[in-house]
Amino acid sequence: MKARVTVTLKNGILDPQGKAIEGALKSLGVDGIASVRQGKVFDIEVESGDKAKAEAALKAAADKLLANTVIENYRVEVLG
Amino acid sequence: MKARVTVTLKNGILDPQGKAIEGALKSLGVDGIASVRQGKVFDIEVESGDKAKAEAALKAAADKLLANTVIENYRVEVLG
Repeated sequence: MKARVTVTLKNGILDPQGKAIEGALKSLGVDGIASVRQGKVFDIEVESGDKAKAEAALKAAADKLLANTVIENYRVEVLG
Repeated sequence: MKARVTVTLKNGILDPQGKAIEGALKSLGVDGIASVRQGKVFDIEVESGDKAKAEAALKAAADKLLANTVIENYRVEVLG
């Protein structure tokens, strides 16, 4: 079963990486970009064919490793 | 205008980061994860209200900076 976990910074958390990208885009001549915030995406193959079991495994993976839940949110999508 | 650019490794490209995460999840006792591939996601605010202009700016940003198009694919979604 294929799934995707998307991890993004919580609102209000400063994103220095995003700021650096904004500056770099300007110096590369790419105009019209007001702000950039960077996150992570994990494409995961889950062994179980059962959706509930898959979601439980993905949630455990996100809580324990993929996301720092103090400053990051995550979203689990089981794609089937 | 809000948009999201998702950058993922092309098929066949080895993902050592993903392999490391697979190993770490096993040692953390998270079972049932067959494979993990990590990518990047950029949440971008585009100044233009025109969808075509926004897509052009995002494509330029991805081609020039956000993605290494030799080994990565990217997907542009204008969310409105």
